[in-house]
Amino acid sequence: LNRHGHFRLRGESMSRLETFVDAAFAFAVTMLVISVDDVPQSYDEFIEALLNTPAFVASFFQVIMFWLGHRAWSRRYGLEDGMALTLSLIIVCGILVIVYPLRVMFAAAVGYFSDGLLPFPFPLEWAHMRAIFAIYGAGFCVMCALIAALYVHAYRRRDWLALNAEERVATRAEIEAWLIPSATGLMGLVLALTAQGEWIVLAGWVYVTLFITLPAHDVLLKLRLQKLAQTSSD
Amino acid sequence: LNRHGHFRLRGESMSRLETFVDAAFAFAVTMLVISVDDVPQSYDEFIEALLNTPAFVASFFQVIMFWLGHRAWSRRYGLEDGMALTLSLIIVCGILVIVYPLRVMFAAAVGYFSDGLLPFPFPLEWAHMRAIFAIYGAGFCVMCALIAALYVHAYRRRDWLALNAEERVATRAEIEAWLIPSATGLMGLVLALTAQGEWIVLAGWVYVTLFITLPAHDVLLKLRLQKLAQTSSD
Amino acid sequence: LNRHGHFRLRGESMSRLETFVDAAFAFAVTMLVISVDDVPQSYDEFIEALLNTPAFVASFFQVIMFWLGHRAWSRRYGLEDGMALTLSLIIVCGILVIVYPLRVMFAAAVGYFSDGLLPFPFPLEWAHMRAIFAIYGAGFCVMCALIAALYVHAYRRRDWLALNAEERVATRAEIEAWLIPSATGLMGLVLALTAQGEWIVLAGWVYVTLFITLPAHDVLLKLRLQKLAQTSSD
Amino acid sequence: LNRHGHFRLRGESMSRLETFVDAAFAFAVTMLVISVDDVPQSYDEFIEALLNTPAFVASFFQVIMFWLGHRAWSRRYGLEDGMALTLSLIIVCGILVIVYPLRVMFAAAVGYFSDGLLPFPFPLEWAHMRAIFAIYGAGFCVMCALIAALYVHAYRRRDWLALNAEERVATRAEIEAWLIPSATGLMGLVLALTAQGEWIVLAGWVYVTLFITLPAHDVLLKLRLQKLAQTSSD
Repeated sequence: LNRHGHFRLRGESMSRLETFVDAAFAFAVTMLVISVDDVPQSYDEFIEALLNTPAFVASFFQVIMFWLGHRAWSRRYGLEDGMALTLSLIIVCGILVIVYPLRVMFAAAVGYFSDGLLPFPFPLEWAHMRAIFAIYGAGFCVMCALIAALYVHAYRRRDWLALNAEERVATRAEIEAWLIPSATGLMGLVLALTAQGEWIVLAGWVYVTLFITLPAHDVLLKLRLQKLAQTSSD
Repeated sequence: LNRHGHFRLRGESMSRLETFVDAAFAFAVTMLVISVDDVPQSYDEFIEALLNTPAFVASFFQVIMFWLGHRAWSRRYGLEDGMALTLSLIIVCGILVIVYPLRVMFAAAVGYFSDGLLPFPFPLEWAHMRAIFAIYGAGFCVMCALIAALYVHAYRRRDWLALNAEERVATRAEIEAWLIPSATGLMGLVLALTAQGEWIVLAGWVYVTLFITLPAHDVLLKLRLQKLAQTSSD
Repeated sequence: LNRHGHFRLRGESMSRLETFVDAAFAFAVTMLVISVDDVPQSYDEFIEALLNTPAFVASFFQVIMFWLGHRAWSRRYGLEDGMALTLSLIIVCGILVIVYPLRVMFAAAVGYFSDGLLPFPFPLEWAHMRAIFAIYGAGFCVMCALIAALYVHAYRRRDWLALNAEERVATRAEIEAWLIPSATGLMGLVLALTAQGEWIVLAGWVYVTLFITLPAHDVLLKLRLQKLAQTSSD
Repeated sequence: LNRHGHFRLRGESMSRLETFVDAAFAFAVTMLVISVDDVPQSYDEFIEALLNTPAFVASFFQVIMFWLGHRAWSRRYGLEDGMALTLSLIIVCGILVIVYPLRVMFAAAVGYFSDGLLPFPFPLEWAHMRAIFAIYGAGFCVMCALIAALYVHAYRRRDWLALNAEERVATRAEIEAWLIPSATGLMGLVLALTAQGEWIVLAGWVYVTLFITLPAHDVLLKLRLQKLAQTSSD
């Protein structure tokens, strides 16, 4: 078995589930960019299509985040039982459902933050923003929870997988690392539903906290792994 | 050879046929969701597209059911001869043909059962429902029969594959397990063509019987396998 | 090395070229069916889309014919040098170019032979049929010649591949087996350009000769292989 | 380890990253051809779609050039660490962003050089050509620089990869071989922004210099490798 950091990679050979997941993700990101405005029929449409690039790039890397989550999980554990199959297929289904909401959400955000320099997806009122942020928050919360569920499943099968002490700590840490954005999405949903007037944008700004919470969690993990190494060397 | 339950997995390495089948299925499910309403151009279209989600999710898992059928079959037997190739390609062709009828059928069902809260695919009269149920029944019947045919093919080559007694019973059981929904689809087709007035909905309700017949078949299989184990241990 | 008939399979492990070719072919066939009429917006459009099924199925298996040609070739020889790469990419490009002409050609043929019961792709005059048959003939001729070129390339590297006497005969036979439809396509092109009035349909009927010429070629090949076996056993 | 010329191939087994990259590239090229004019609805549209073939073929092979660059790199080094992943995903994102600009650029070029015999993508003025050449130059420059960055990354890990003297020279040569077109793209961008009147076409002609600079670089590489072989045999 090869290693990635502390983790022995149990699932490096390709399976059909992985091919299917990869093809569906590749398709989803292609659709994000390609079908957004069909083929430009005039120079102005061509330029407008290019102005959508920032929103496309943002939603591309959002989708990729979930693909990387699935890939890291399947490389580490190589599980392909009934539960792994079910969760993976629900994740693919979820990605396909949220691919357009994602696009609309990022286009709205880009339009808002560029003060209309970059195009909005369509004319939007504050009431619409509320719904879009709520939908995005719900989707983000569910998708991150599904990846966390994959790690919970692996953790439950820790004896069968013969995970060592370090790998058990790393698996628990991954569960937390995906529950943090999941909780952030839930908070975004709640803020979107309850905030008054222009405070709705808080439901977008809440995701910025991830740049603090996730690195902080990483630091805590490293401390825990050091402690573990000390304990076992004693 | 690895095992899945009682079955030694003869086809775990990827082949080009499998990559092709996976890519085509991944496309088909993506198309189910993505191209249904093109990109929303206004907030109302955006919300309407989201209301299609239940119908999409239902047809996604319907298509996935056939993909899982093909995957389980190819993992178990690893056959890639002329007949396996022909049947697999006919299944891919069949999925592509029924992908839109499926979508329309589920959208109609979702619209009907939610009493119009969720959108119909397009305005429908009872005469149209008859045709849609008939087309769906025919497609469902043929697709399940094709998966059954894959197992019949594997059963015919049981000596070449060196299937043991348990695996032979399991293979015969799979043939039956796919002929049951195939027969249900046929009954749906007949009901759609013959039922009077609003009784046409029976052609949709008939598929609910699968929640009884398939588990019942599973119980019978387990009894047969126990008997077999007893006989061989005597 | 495994065997398929008389042939040792040198290329059974998957390569990136093969994944790329498979994904592009899977995409091309999906596009054949899916984007033809966008999503039906009314019951009549739904039924019309279903009536396109025979033309779709015919063009699906036409595209699959070239995929099977490429797959058989790469399984047998496992070549992935510069020439194999170039020819494979030209074949993918060719398939993408001819995918719509194929669709139009088969829809026209189906419309013609069903006497208008099944839908024409669009209103057609005899002068248009001439152009469609000519384009189809040219595309068919070039695509088959490209597959033949793959086998010529393998035959040239016969020493490097260590093909035995039987495999050399089989390779030469494959070259001929692809040049026959290529020549038929050329004849279709010439007939389309020169035939008078309704005789243009001959440019379509010419492909029926393949049901005689290809089996005849197969019989000749078997005789040659028998002779070879006799000679080597003497 | 197999070899390709002087290079031992470290990355011949398929990984998920490669499947994902392949599927995304296969989609991108299919989209180039398929969605350009939707399905032809009349004979004239059908013929017009065929006249787009030269521009499609040119942009197909342009996209393929980057795919071949990525494939050659991953076969040689088999790296799949964080940096390789990041660069590969940026390349995929870049390809999806430039796929329509590429199409427009080549259609404009084909329209210009055929003097309007082949169709322009849409009516164009000289000011538009300036923007199209500038966008193309920027995209080409960035994409080639990204492939060069992949080789720089491999070169940095040369000790970990245990590259021998020959392989180090070849890796440095690949970096240069991708920086040359990158610099050419930059020159095209500058020319597009600064050229007066019809001189803007220089921003297109500049790419013709690659037919001289790249072969010249190849000759220099062979001289260096010969020198190296002499030195090591002394």
